[in-house]
Amino acid sequence: VKLLTLARDLQRRRAREREGLFVAEGIRAVEELLRAPIALRGALVSPTLVETPRGIALRAALDAAGAPVLELGEREFQSAAATDSPQGVLAIADIPEWRLGELARPARARVLVLDAIQDPGNVGTLLRTAAAFGVAATLAMPGTVDLWNGKVVRSAMGALFVRPALSCTWAELDEFLRERDIPLWSADGAGEPLDTFTGASPQRMALAVGNEGGGLSADALARTVRRVSIPIEPDIESLNVAVAAGILLYHLRS
Amino acid sequence: VKLLTLARDLQRRRAREREGLFVAEGIRAVEELLRAPIALRGALVSPTLVETPRGIALRAALDAAGAPVLELGEREFQSAAATDSPQGVLAIADIPEWRLGELARPARARVLVLDAIQDPGNVGTLLRTAAAFGVAATLAMPGTVDLWNGKVVRSAMGALFVRPALSCTWAELDEFLRERDIPLWSADGAGEPLDTFTGASPQRMALAVGNEGGGLSADALARTVRRVSIPIEPDIESLNVAVAAGILLYHLRS
Repeated sequence: VKLLTLARDLQRRRAREREGLFVAEGIRAVEELLRAPIALRGALVSPTLVETPRGIALRAALDAAGAPVLELGEREFQSAAATDSPQGVLAIADIPEWRLGELARPARARVLVLDAIQDPGNVGTLLRTAAAFGVAATLAMPGTVDLWNGKVVRSAMGALFVRPALSCTWAELDEFLRERDIPLWSADGAGEPLDTFTGASPQRMALAVGNEGGGLSADALARTVRRVSIPIEPDIESLNVAVAAGILLYHLRS
Repeated sequence: VKLLTLARDLQRRRAREREGLFVAEGIRAVEELLRAPIALRGALVSPTLVETPRGIALRAALDAAGAPVLELGEREFQSAAATDSPQGVLAIADIPEWRLGELARPARARVLVLDAIQDPGNVGTLLRTAAAFGVAATLAMPGTVDLWNGKVVRSAMGALFVRPALSCTWAELDEFLRERDIPLWSADGAGEPLDTFTGASPQRMALAVGNEGGGLSADALARTVRRVSIPIEPDIESLNVAVAAGILLYHLRS
């Protein structure tokens, strides 16, 4: 029952920050979690889980992982689940403690900077996209939804478990970029069109993407050395932020 | 009250198909709808709408549009709304009747083919991305979520109102592609890496993207003349389908 109370509490950001724990919900997310180097603290399961071979295999993997597994009825399980159609499994695990100063220092690197991205699905897809293109770290600036929000965790499809991702302040970002000599570029509809870029991309680069409605913040613009735009049809306002980040990270890959 | 019942009914695909109507919910979606060449049949509003200047302006625009506007209390409005935090406005409008055979025949063209894409948010983002890159039409193949699903409409950010998008069968697609001499390419993790492509993209091309979990269907693969992959890190399974489509549509633009 303590696990059940904990899982419910962890739906709130404040509880996640206090406990240093997060919840991964659903078969795919828990499978990815078990593969990652992250300490599992426990799991909740309902009879729904073992209705499929994949669920039965996951149930066995949870037992093998050694953390406590609490079996609940559907109704109780639902009270801790955040999705409308839960798959009968959620796991509680340690939030990885990444620190800016301790990140690796590759000669060529990409860093993704999330400037007040508010939709958890967008942030999850951004993390997944960043991981796919070998981004060294994803940094969530003030105003961005909590990286360990349940929907972010699910949308990231495991990317959050295997790549550095952390929240930081603008002052911390300044220090990080200056100390490592990483210029900040930004995605901005009013920037230089991407299709006019020629030649090699810089060895190191951080790319900021802005809020879904408001675009880049004054904080981001003040630090930007180069603004890049993706040419789109004039009657369409903008691209989805994760789509834009994917195009830029692919095109400007190191 | 008839409008209220209708709005509730239109949450179901069968009712939308029977009536030839759909619902656009939220300030942004209704604003885009009013700008589009689509016949408005009516709107529901609640006091929430006129709490902001933007909402007040939209309320006036609805009156100016001439369709009936039904004012409801929050509770009744909520009973027809599909979102958790509705913004006090939804509009009912005609589904545009695009026909494959009547689409324009530009010399250079891109067509996006949705092969059983199931998540409405993904389909909406795909439609928005397609519109941004000048795609001539987006075709929803069997197994794809209804294009006029409320969440698709919201996620498309107006793109669904201004660009041809329609459902079709594989036989209809065959006829369309053959008659217009459009080859079908597909996004496939096992295809030729995009970064080995050089030279100009073909004048006309249809691009198929596959189901979020299962990838391309046998139907799509059987019709594909060229499979293209986006190189990603080996430990990441895949990109989000809308992100992948965005990268391919940008890179292979006509």
